Amino acid sequence: MTTASDNVKTRAAIIGCTGYTGYHLVDLLLRHPGAELTYLASHRAVLPDLRDEFPQLSGRLDDEVAQTRPIDFEAIAESADVAFLGLPHKAAMAYAPKLLDAGLRVIDLSADYRLSDQALYEEVYDVKHDDPRNLAEAVYGIPELFRKDLPGATLVANPGCYPTAAALAVAPLLSHSLVKTERIVINAASGVTGAGKSPKPSLHFPEANQAFGAYGVIGGHRHQPEIAQTLSRIAGHEVSPLFVPHLLPVDRGILETIYLEPHDPDVTEEELIDAFVDAYAGEPFVRLRESPPNIKHVVGTNFCDLSVRLTTQGDVKTVVVFAAEDNMIKGASGQAVQNMNAVFELDETAGLL
Amino acid sequence: MTTASDNVKTRAAIIGCTGYTGYHLVDLLLRHPGAELTYLASHRAVLPDLRDEFPQLSGRLDDEVAQTRPIDFEAIAESADVAFLGLPHKAAMAYAPKLLDAGLRVIDLSADYRLSDQALYEEVYDVKHDDPRNLAEAVYGIPELFRKDLPGATLVANPGCYPTAAALAVAPLLSHSLVKTERIVINAASGVTGAGKSPKPSLHFPEANQAFGAYGVIGGHRHQPEIAQTLSRIAGHEVSPLFVPHLLPVDRGILETIYLEPHDPDVTEEELIDAFVDAYAGEPFVRLRESPPNIKHVVGTNFCDLSVRLTTQGDVKTVVVFAAEDNMIKGASGQAVQNMNAVFELDETAGLL
Amino acid sequence: MTTASDNVKTRAAIIGCTGYTGYHLVDLLLRHPGAELTYLASHRAVLPDLRDEFPQLSGRLDDEVAQTRPIDFEAIAESADVAFLGLPHKAAMAYAPKLLDAGLRVIDLSADYRLSDQALYEEVYDVKHDDPRNLAEAVYGIPELFRKDLPGATLVANPGCYPTAAALAVAPLLSHSLVKTERIVINAASGVTGAGKSPKPSLHFPEANQAFGAYGVIGGHRHQPEIAQTLSRIAGHEVSPLFVPHLLPVDRGILETIYLEPHDPDVTEEELIDAFVDAYAGEPFVRLRESPPNIKHVVGTNFCDLSVRLTTQGDVKTVVVFAAEDNMIKGASGQAVQNMNAVFELDETAGLL
Amino acid sequence: MTTASDNVKTRAAIIGCTGYTGYHLVDLLLRHPGAELTYLASHRAVLPDLRDEFPQLSGRLDDEVAQTRPIDFEAIAESADVAFLGLPHKAAMAYAPKLLDAGLRVIDLSADYRLSDQALYEEVYDVKHDDPRNLAEAVYGIPELFRKDLPGATLVANPGCYPTAAALAVAPLLSHSLVKTERIVINAASGVTGAGKSPKPSLHFPEANQAFGAYGVIGGHRHQPEIAQTLSRIAGHEVSPLFVPHLLPVDRGILETIYLEPHDPDVTEEELIDAFVDAYAGEPFVRLRESPPNIKHVVGTNFCDLSVRLTTQGDVKTVVVFAAEDNMIKGASGQAVQNMNAVFELDETAGLL
Repeated sequence: MTTASDNVKTRAAIIGCTGYTGYHLVDLLLRHPGAELTYLASHRAVLPDLRDEFPQLSGRLDDEVAQTRPIDFEAIAESADVAFLGLPHKAAMAYAPKLLDAGLRVIDLSADYRLSDQALYEEVYDVKHDDPRNLAEAVYGIPELFRKDLPGATLVANPGCYPTAAALAVAPLLSHSLVKTERIVINAASGVTGAGKSPKPSLHFPEANQAFGAYGVIGGHRHQPEIAQTLSRIAGHEVSPLFVPHLLPVDRGILETIYLEPHDPDVTEEELIDAFVDAYAGEPFVRLRESPPNIKHVVGTNFCDLSVRLTTQGDVKTVVVFAAEDNMIKGASGQAVQNMNAVFELDETAGLL
Repeated sequence: MTTASDNVKTRAAIIGCTGYTGYHLVDLLLRHPGAELTYLASHRAVLPDLRDEFPQLSGRLDDEVAQTRPIDFEAIAESADVAFLGLPHKAAMAYAPKLLDAGLRVIDLSADYRLSDQALYEEVYDVKHDDPRNLAEAVYGIPELFRKDLPGATLVANPGCYPTAAALAVAPLLSHSLVKTERIVINAASGVTGAGKSPKPSLHFPEANQAFGAYGVIGGHRHQPEIAQTLSRIAGHEVSPLFVPHLLPVDRGILETIYLEPHDPDVTEEELIDAFVDAYAGEPFVRLRESPPNIKHVVGTNFCDLSVRLTTQGDVKTVVVFAAEDNMIKGASGQAVQNMNAVFELDETAGLL
Repeated sequence: MTTASDNVKTRAAIIGCTGYTGYHLVDLLLRHPGAELTYLASHRAVLPDLRDEFPQLSGRLDDEVAQTRPIDFEAIAESADVAFLGLPHKAAMAYAPKLLDAGLRVIDLSADYRLSDQALYEEVYDVKHDDPRNLAEAVYGIPELFRKDLPGATLVANPGCYPTAAALAVAPLLSHSLVKTERIVINAASGVTGAGKSPKPSLHFPEANQAFGAYGVIGGHRHQPEIAQTLSRIAGHEVSPLFVPHLLPVDRGILETIYLEPHDPDVTEEELIDAFVDAYAGEPFVRLRESPPNIKHVVGTNFCDLSVRLTTQGDVKTVVVFAAEDNMIKGASGQAVQNMNAVFELDETAGLL
Repeated sequence: MTTASDNVKTRAAIIGCTGYTGYHLVDLLLRHPGAELTYLASHRAVLPDLRDEFPQLSGRLDDEVAQTRPIDFEAIAESADVAFLGLPHKAAMAYAPKLLDAGLRVIDLSADYRLSDQALYEEVYDVKHDDPRNLAEAVYGIPELFRKDLPGATLVANPGCYPTAAALAVAPLLSHSLVKTERIVINAASGVTGAGKSPKPSLHFPEANQAFGAYGVIGGHRHQPEIAQTLSRIAGHEVSPLFVPHLLPVDRGILETIYLEPHDPDVTEEELIDAFVDAYAGEPFVRLRESPPNIKHVVGTNFCDLSVRLTTQGDVKTVVVFAAEDNMIKGASGQAVQNMNAVFELDETAGLL
């Protein structure tokens, strides 16, 4: 077992731990030298032992923690410093205020606090937002882009998997004004865990195996407004990319191939690369690569691998950025732990390398 | 065994049958009611029994045909009406003239006769073209687009896998002048058989399994000039798309997701769909779909599934076309058989449905 | 389309066509030169268009046939000569008698008529058998072993996928009395289609992908009694093998590795092989192999590949037999078509090579 | 980065780090709180940067360590306390004596010191053993079975992947004399990494993907004598099991399904389970399961999951044991680290949970 420093460990509760993000939170927190898992809660009617849900955790979780418990705010507040919410949207915003009121920090992995525009949230998720007060306070947690917001934050909206990769891939180009913003195309592909743990006909093994295709309403995926919000914030003006997700026949991993038009037709590939070096030098979880990244090299890690290229077709040029991450780690639970580290001012890489 | 019509069967030889396209040619010709496999030749030093190369063929190929033979033009000319070339480029153009001179029809699955511009061929494939006479005569075989060239043709250049899907996906938009041609993006993904049968480190199972990434020199794949040639021919002017291929962790299947800018910002999705209906109504191997196509639904068939969408991002619109095919069938051996059918004026679907 | 002989085609109905075996029946019958699909019926409340269930069939099924119809015995009797039942057990025995009474031949792919011992059926499937009269008449359809029962049979019980491979693998050893029968071990592995088309947590892609393990009550799979029945029939006395199935992370394919003790410790491998040659020489769908067979080489075909070895450990010897088949073809729909061919005295390979 | 205890860290060198076991050693040692990677050596002519071989390691290995170095015994002795050998057999026994003479502890992942019978080694590996002196001293490192041999050992032969699972699965039955030993059948299946990192035709992605079959000379795999040696040592007499390996279409994971005959026909399943509890209670890396284990639940971990069942067929009974492990972790590099921990008397689980 990794040994703690002399400091007291950060005590973590997970509310909603029976999905894939919950599993990965447990897995990561068990490895974290400065954190301790103290409370696992489920909102299911019958409380499962997490080792039955995830036989992988057998031998790693002791009896007391493995038995999930009912959501009891007082008990959680007593036993934890931070609560991770692995709940569906709508459920998250029902619990977050109570946890915050009880003095806990909250890191929400649902979509409930990601879109700062309440009306947009309500349109995209087709529900009323019940907690506008905290929505206004929530911090959007991509440390590489918005690190200064994190220390001491009380509520972190943990970004979606696709938006994390897209934001990291496009931010350097926007912040250096290297590309036009009217016609950004994000061609994305994700492993099946991104669709959650509930069986569905299209995710039945013989249907999803050895298959590949786009899915959802083309251009209408719920992550598009979240991506647009982040790119707009960085660009300083409205940016609305085209986002087309595809389903890969793998468990984990996202690859985004992003096409952009350079502002200056005489831009060089070196200038593009410099923008990325400038943005990410010293970042422990962003790796700039010469070769196009592959999901194989990031799965199981908190890395986001990026590569940028300038291509020429006849008279025109196109910037191509590739971004690869593990949708479960940098795209969800790993980033959540990274955010916890930043909030509590621990070493940001603790438990993640 | 499927029974022939009263007509004499077309006798087919395969020169170069030990790769994946060769295997699929054998498989398809064995099922063809109007064709007969009469000669299998390999240019290997030691002539293999094809049933050892492909245990799948055991019990389907009889002893006489299964033993591959040396390339003997006289013997081939005596035993066959048509020769399929499943050879590497450069080798194909060494054999094709002799087969043509011996009176055979030739369907070449290599790249040697695909690019009508000799200089471009020599640049892309980095070899001198030895057979410019036949290059000038070769017919590029996508029946859905260039059917009238096929009946009676003596030499058919069978298109590449990526170019077939790209051409079928973009042709209706170009021929109806619905899209701009400066900035066409073809995001493509292929199964591993597309890379051939020779083991390589990057295609070793533990490297390619559960992996996904772009490959090759971005924008520099050899299929780009072939795609550009076809799109230019249809558009009537030079078109140079950006082509970015990715490797999927599956055996077979190509999916292309193609992004184009509409000419008229007020174009409707119905107008786009109408162009596809207009182009492909009655085509037995092109299926127009409402949902985005999936490689799962075309693998093992000669179908190319297409779907077109109009998307809106802020003030701009983007046309998205999806194309799915089996890289080994419609993208190689199936189309070669379809071309044979067209050349010999058989039912174009014979042996393919 | 393959052309029929001058003879009238056998008209086939499929009752229960929305599962995987139904799909493969449709696929095979569409390729069959001597059969015609005339009626597709579903017992669902809402009748689907089969091309929506299986986009693969789009462009292959015309409108009239593609729309599944209610089960209407009179209509079926008018439009078909044979009915394939792709229904769950219990449902099959409700419909079979009516179809038989209406004069149709019936090929049942469920378990309802496989176990000739009614009490055993009722114990294993935990339901009362409603049709003992036809149960007594049903023919168990493995043509290679029981061919003489098939011509003119009115009701064929199409065997289970595991039992087909097991029976073909062990029959030659039993009929030549080469092995002891007390301690036969059948270690089996199947692709996921064997578990059907309904989504379940354990078959959700991220759970079944890259996974491998035994399943079910060890030694208690429902196919065990069916295997035991066939081996006992061949041996002439009670044989009860140990059957342990595992789930492979593939769509299709069964491999069985079977361990047996030779009767005579001095038996040679040649004698074992001779028994297989003797049993299967001339059989179009059984291939004897020197190398252990692989599911890769049988998937998509009606072949069962077999290999037999004699091994020595210290003082003892063990016979090992390997059997590979496609659980959907030789293990289900392909064998059903083979049985149809045998019943109607067509070429047994028609539509299957 | 996990923080060390106050104690000095164990300094580790890896000689031969460019294969899959080398990669996993690096990965595990980088996570180990009590160890430090100090020297990476390759016996290749051109010394690679390990981050080029394994892009996964980029951002985790610093420049100094990542550049592999020539094998320089003096330099290694100065910089390390222990050397892991990730070399092919024959190469390992050329280097081990020099490293031992230089005062290092050696943990050899090759087969060179696994078989204590020199003549047997020479027969199985078809080379002369060059280092009989150390062969006699080498300790066979399965801590759960032979823990007392490890503290202070100078040379550890790290077991093969298949033998580790087999030994852990059968040991409790042998040590409690619960089974006969004449006719033990080990039906095994492994992921493709077990075959190493060199491309071969049979491991080319399109050949190994969605495939499953036995491989090698049936009953003649090189791991059989190693398994026999361990089982014989535990039983106290010669045991020679039948071992039949199969290749799974996955990267990692071994599942063994083992069939044994009980000594006492009246033995109960509880007695069998008690033997396992007795053997492994308190073992951190052996998990006893009720359900059959699945490779999915052990991949990426140092666990070996075991399950034992008693089955009845007619009059006879068969014991079935299932064992699952990650061939790269408990079957290779994880067990090597566990052995290092035991040799240096660290917490045996350090770096492995």
